[in-house]
Amino acid sequence: MTDYRTLRVALLGAGAVGSQVADLLLKHRAELADRAGANLELAGIAVRNIDGKRDADLPRELFTTDAESLIVGSDIVIELMGGIEPARTQVLQAINSGADVVTANKALLATHGSEIFDAADQVGAEVYYEAAAAGAIPIIRPLRDSLAGDRVVRIMGIVNGTTNYILDRMDTEGADFADVLAQAQALGYAEADPTADVEGYDAAQKAAILASLAFHTTVPLDAVHREGITQIDAAMIESARHAGYVIKLLAVCERLAAADGEPSESISVRVYPALVERTHPLASVHGANNAVFVQAEAAGDLMFYGAGAGGVQTASAVLGDVVSAARRHIAGGVGVGESTRANLPTVPIGRVITRYQITLEVDDQPGVLATVAGILSEGRVSIATVEQTVIEPDADDPAAGGSARLVIGTHQAREQDLSETVERLAASGVVERVVSVLRVEGN
Amino acid sequence: MTDYRTLRVALLGAGAVGSQVADLLLKHRAELADRAGANLELAGIAVRNIDGKRDADLPRELFTTDAESLIVGSDIVIELMGGIEPARTQVLQAINSGADVVTANKALLATHGSEIFDAADQVGAEVYYEAAAAGAIPIIRPLRDSLAGDRVVRIMGIVNGTTNYILDRMDTEGADFADVLAQAQALGYAEADPTADVEGYDAAQKAAILASLAFHTTVPLDAVHREGITQIDAAMIESARHAGYVIKLLAVCERLAAADGEPSESISVRVYPALVERTHPLASVHGANNAVFVQAEAAGDLMFYGAGAGGVQTASAVLGDVVSAARRHIAGGVGVGESTRANLPTVPIGRVITRYQITLEVDDQPGVLATVAGILSEGRVSIATVEQTVIEPDADDPAAGGSARLVIGTHQAREQDLSETVERLAASGVVERVVSVLRVEGN
Ligand SMILES: NC(=O)c1ccc[n+]([C@@H]2O[C@H](COP(=O)([O-])OP(=O)(O)OC[C@H]3O[C@@H](n4cnc5c(N)ncnc54)[C@H](OP(=O)(O)O)[C@@H]3O)[C@@H](O)[C@H]2O)c1
Ligand SMILES: NC(=O)c1ccc[n+]([C@@H]2O[C@H](COP(=O)([O-])OP(=O)(O)OC[C@H]3O[C@@H](n4cnc5c(N)ncnc54)[C@H](OP(=O)(O)O)[C@@H]3O)[C@@H](O)[C@H]2O)c1
Repeated sequence: MTDYRTLRVALLGAGAVGSQVADLLLKHRAELADRAGANLELAGIAVRNIDGKRDADLPRELFTTDAESLIVGSDIVIELMGGIEPARTQVLQAINSGADVVTANKALLATHGSEIFDAADQVGAEVYYEAAAAGAIPIIRPLRDSLAGDRVVRIMGIVNGTTNYILDRMDTEGADFADVLAQAQALGYAEADPTADVEGYDAAQKAAILASLAFHTTVPLDAVHREGITQIDAAMIESARHAGYVIKLLAVCERLAAADGEPSESISVRVYPALVERTHPLASVHGANNAVFVQAEAAGDLMFYGAGAGGVQTASAVLGDVVSAARRHIAGGVGVGESTRANLPTVPIGRVITRYQITLEVDDQPGVLATVAGILSEGRVSIATVEQTVIEPDADDPAAGGSARLVIGTHQAREQDLSETVERLAASGVVERVVSVLRVEGN
Repeated sequence: MTDYRTLRVALLGAGAVGSQVADLLLKHRAELADRAGANLELAGIAVRNIDGKRDADLPRELFTTDAESLIVGSDIVIELMGGIEPARTQVLQAINSGADVVTANKALLATHGSEIFDAADQVGAEVYYEAAAAGAIPIIRPLRDSLAGDRVVRIMGIVNGTTNYILDRMDTEGADFADVLAQAQALGYAEADPTADVEGYDAAQKAAILASLAFHTTVPLDAVHREGITQIDAAMIESARHAGYVIKLLAVCERLAAADGEPSESISVRVYPALVERTHPLASVHGANNAVFVQAEAAGDLMFYGAGAGGVQTASAVLGDVVSAARRHIAGGVGVGESTRANLPTVPIGRVITRYQITLEVDDQPGVLATVAGILSEGRVSIATVEQTVIEPDADDPAAGGSARLVIGTHQAREQDLSETVERLAASGVVERVVSVLRVEGN
């Protein structure tokens, strides 16, 4: 082995990701040293339970429950505990003791990112977080470095594997949400408490991180509009298919041009299930895979695809960060991140402009379509396509009168206008039921 | 504008890419300064003809024919002239005068990469070349940094837009190569002399660059096995479709495990048209788009998709490199590239192991399949699938006797065994014609 300098690496956490990181650090010692230009010495692993079962065969003497002491004197601290505390305190301790930090903790960064990055700036430390944005998919360096001379216009990301798995199975099997969720839980694709995934919280954290990077701005988590997929049923999937779409839970980060009353640019960051055309590259992201579709002014359309999670996959991203941190330690010099951040305002969901698909059950009578069209037009929502199908009358209640289903595709409309219009439709007397309102994303 | 230090940027070339780079450098001055932490002052643009027409509206006083003088005193030199000389000499001049170099010149790097990188190492300069690998697709930083803690096993790249455009149209229209090539030339998707694209030279240069990066080794261009797409006809495309495949020109870079007689790992780098399953993510890369599919030990399957060429798209990648170079100038410290390179041997094509599809015209007689199967088995080529179809006899020559077409899918076989076996089949007496032999790539 070449005579490299040795860097002391502290690992906090040895769960799904941490145990794989430890394993690879030990197994690929020599190669990692060649990549990093330094020996990466795993000084210890902090956990809650020293005798816990680990996914990899790791030397028992590395384990400790005393994270604070382990951090002291470390050059690189890898935080893979998850959660806010004690992760936050220990990350700040690491930064203030002069270490670089590598973390996969999207919850921590989405809620306390500014505090952590400011602390790092103060002392000239770096925080690396490739694994926090889209698991194993390399997206941070492309956004921060490769596209640094370009302007990102829009990101559409499938950034949660569990929900993509569920929606994909609903799409291929025609099954209902609850059934597929139960299957996914049995197979380990979804957690016993699936809230963070199916309600879009996990995707919202990643959206905040991606938007911050792409637009060189700070996006607080509570500025991210969030809707989950629990309302999606087999009929909506089928109707989407019929119209040439697939439903995906998307994290959309968008740059909005300066406009009337808004002298400066702003951004919109939102997570919701949306219709995506089946020919769009995002439509062919199947199973638990993730993908981030990026539109930039000069580069055009780019897509980054891969595993969004998984212990060993995520460990790959963590180790890439560890090597970067080590190279920086060896090379000397100060950090090479952003110099200045724009602080673009995040607009509320009502200001978003996109296309919609509105599905209504209406009385099957002459003039109904004209009434509906009138309400839409008054509401500044312009119709692109309409499809009307008669619903078979209820055999038990033939006197109830005929119904029809209207599937309306709109041109670009403002969310505020759209939702007010849908309320007026619901109250109009001719609409029996608003079956669904879905946004259409992609071009 | 913040009070940044000013860096002097020299641009060599103002063609398709260079004119867009100059335009963006001037238009996005303020934003680029915020990203880079430095003012990027475009000191001049070297061209052959000062009065040449440019794709962007650029100040005439920036132009010069004296590249050498422009380079002197520059902090960053952007080489977008193309070709080997004078690009090579001027890049070396820039490095030796202490500048960092940004280039999109795949021909130069694939042939003189070692000389240039060695010169840069000597003086502590950096050479950035994102645009030389896959145009606008960010692939260098993911391979060099994000995957630095992982081991790349295999890359399959669609890295030439012209050939992907041609093959895609042949696939969707059932048209023949020559017709689509003529259309592509008329539309500007192919050059008047299409050799570099259709014979795979351009893809081979990119394959050498990608393999060097992925395997941390030096891959000379003449170690890249190269075949073009001029032999692909409508019948081959149709037959591929029938079997569930699409034909793509692939750059394959593969790590081969140590084996009998080969104590160390080796690599294979090859460019050829191959069958790709229609469900593979690479199969949905349409038109002139490019994509690089990467398999890594820990990260699993990743794919990077985008525009492989185009002036403004490529300019995005060039400017990302310029910002990186500027950040490095400001941050100080030495370069952060590879510390040590493995020098893995590149094996000849005969040592490659992959699957094949062999299409034969044979006499339509009992026992022919048994003979063919016997020859394959003797040649250590094991059959996975066989499809036999009777060819309608020639109406003008009914006495000629019946023929049949055999489409044989093999299991993994060694290229050397395969090609010897195909020769033996051709000479066997029962085979009328070897219609095609294509490799099958993917899993
Ligand atoms: N799993 C994935 O696929 C994935 C993907 C991307 C990002 N991430 C992120 O990576 C991080 C780690 O995820 P994970 O799935 O590896 O988590 P995990 O399996 O729950 O493991 C957490 C580890 O941290 C240790 N730990 C927790 N609290 C601690 C404390 N107070 N003091 C000391 N040690 C403590 C645990 O110790 P014990 O073992 O002793 O209980 C355990 O080893 C999270 O931020 C997660 O969001 C995960
Ligand atoms: N075009 C793409 O989409 C693309 C994509 C990826 C990479 N690249 C690479 O980018 C590089 C530039 O490509 P391009 O398409 O922009 O080339 P191009 O359109 O042919 O432009 C070449 C430019 O270099 C100048 N030049 C050539 N020889 C010169 C010399 N001896 N002295 C001074 N100036 C000289 C030319 O000057 P005049 O204008 O006065 O003749 C012209 O402005 C090439 O290495 C190419 O492989 C291109």
